[in-house]
Amino acid sequence: MRTVHYTSVASESVGPEASGVSVRWVISDADGAPGFALRVFEIEPGGYTPRHQHPWEHEVFVLAGEGCVRSASGETRLSEGTAVLVEPDELHQFANPGGVPFRFICVVPNAAYGHGR
Amino acid sequence: MRTVHYTSVASESVGPEASGVSVRWVISDADGAPGFALRVFEIEPGGYTPRHQHPWEHEVFVLAGEGCVRSASGETRLSEGTAVLVEPDELHQFANPGGVPFRFICVVPNAAYGHGR
Repeated sequence: MRTVHYTSVASESVGPEASGVSVRWVISDADGAPGFALRVFEIEPGGYTPRHQHPWEHEVFVLAGEGCVRSASGETRLSEGTAVLVEPDELHQFANPGGVPFRFICVVPNAAYGHGR
Repeated sequence: MRTVHYTSVASESVGPEASGVSVRWVISDADGAPGFALRVFEIEPGGYTPRHQHPWEHEVFVLAGEGCVRSASGETRLSEGTAVLVEPDELHQFANPGGVPFRFICVVPNAAYGHGR
């Protein structure tokens, strides 16, 4: 069993197709988690993640702030307590058009299950 | 893509070896999530989950309140922002000895990856 406060995990900058985005790999295969990884992302006001798609899913849960997710069919606003399933191969981008940091959990499968970290 | 506020998902009681515990399956294979499921648990003051073990992992993130997780080696206090990896086959129990609801995310693999829901 491993217990850690997410702020104790080093924050890494996400780039180069993102702006103002950092990620903490709070639980990952490096900790002995076999199936998937739990990351916490933070997007600064005006920031955004890459607009991209990939064969693995995302399962997202908003912790703080407000933001949006953009898909091929448009934009959806997100706030604390909202969850998002991004299905495999679905185009997506998260962004923070607001004035305070936008923070969310994003779970992805490990490499053994198709994630190309 | 599916977007939902977790409070819009029906809350189910957890039993019979638990007390004062409810769960919302916020994202699951029923939504087309291939690999794993994101659930939100709430434990009332004095409540607890089953003391058990199973072949699949848990990845937990505390959203609100305070509680604890018990393993074979003792008890660890948990508060908002703390994450817990419960490894496969590890004995565990979550409990709320506090005075306010204890709420956390718990991610599990789908049946295809070994979870016996």
